Amino acid sequence: MKLKIEPLTRTAFAPFGDVIDCSGAGHYTINDGFAERYHDLAKIDVASNGGRPLVNIFRAKPRELPFKVALMERHPLSSQAFVPLLPRAFLVIVAAFGQPPLATDLRCFRTTGMQGINYARGIWHHPLIALEGLQDFLVIDRGGPGDNCDEIQMPADIIVEG
Amino acid sequence: MKLKIEPLTRTAFAPFGDVIDCSGAGHYTINDGFAERYHDLAKIDVASNGGRPLVNIFRAKPRELPFKVALMERHPLSSQAFVPLLPRAFLVIVAAFGQPPLATDLRCFRTTGMQGINYARGIWHHPLIALEGLQDFLVIDRGGPGDNCDEIQMPADIIVEG
Repeated sequence: MKLKIEPLTRTAFAPFGDVIDCSGAGHYTINDGFAERYHDLAKIDVASNGGRPLVNIFRAKPRELPFKVALMERHPLSSQAFVPLLPRAFLVIVAAFGQPPLATDLRCFRTTGMQGINYARGIWHHPLIALEGLQDFLVIDRGGPGDNCDEIQMPADIIVEG
Repeated sequence: MKLKIEPLTRTAFAPFGDVIDCSGAGHYTINDGFAERYHDLAKIDVASNGGRPLVNIFRAKPRELPFKVALMERHPLSSQAFVPLLPRAFLVIVAAFGQPPLATDLRCFRTTGMQGINYARGIWHHPLIALEGLQDFLVIDRGGPGDNCDEIQMPADIIVEG
């Protein structure tokens, strides 16, 4: 089956987590007028089972379209946030329902280039899909005890086309 | 007095917190070879007194050199991390010793453009100093009860020159 690419919006992504960007976010002026603070953009949910927030950089190789969705993963103990360190679009594939997800549960979003995302705890998602060259992302996830990654193989015929 | 600008390195900044970049950081391969994870780059210290991590974007106006250091601040309950969302340099002014800091305690670092920083809890620092146009930073700090910002006016003669 073909998986359609949708534009990423705060409303469309709400069932899966947070969109991290300034557009539509609450904000106020700080630093004597030298900065605007866009406040509290993601629910960082990492404390369960003795967890702590980890800050990392993922340096991602680009993928090419059409793209085959072979595997999905989830983190049962934590959220996971990705914020691009260059203003470039990337793809975000998540599952709306299903335990494990079915092919028909998947949604695929393309970011604007100015957006990061935060997967809510337990949301099935595809590993990072950069599109435009080697790219660094700031990643906020969890360190601590417990097994925090489930993976599932998907049927062979799920294709994301450009 | 004139405050000298030094290059930001992990070693030089160690007394004040963390440098968030890939250079010299521990890393390993993930996502079937499609990404390199530079792991655990900053100590996020926000849990005291019922705190939780906040993710924000600060949109900063640039400052011009020479620059007068009028005020320093510190967050007694938390760390605070700044990661630029465009690869541009910014200035970081911190105080090595002193409670409150003296002019002679200050250090000023210029980032490479590929570096973020994380101020350790309680470290005196100057508010964000962007240099190259309007710039967004991802900021990880703390939400929760308690007064988490102390400010102090500095003597009038501390100047950062280009």
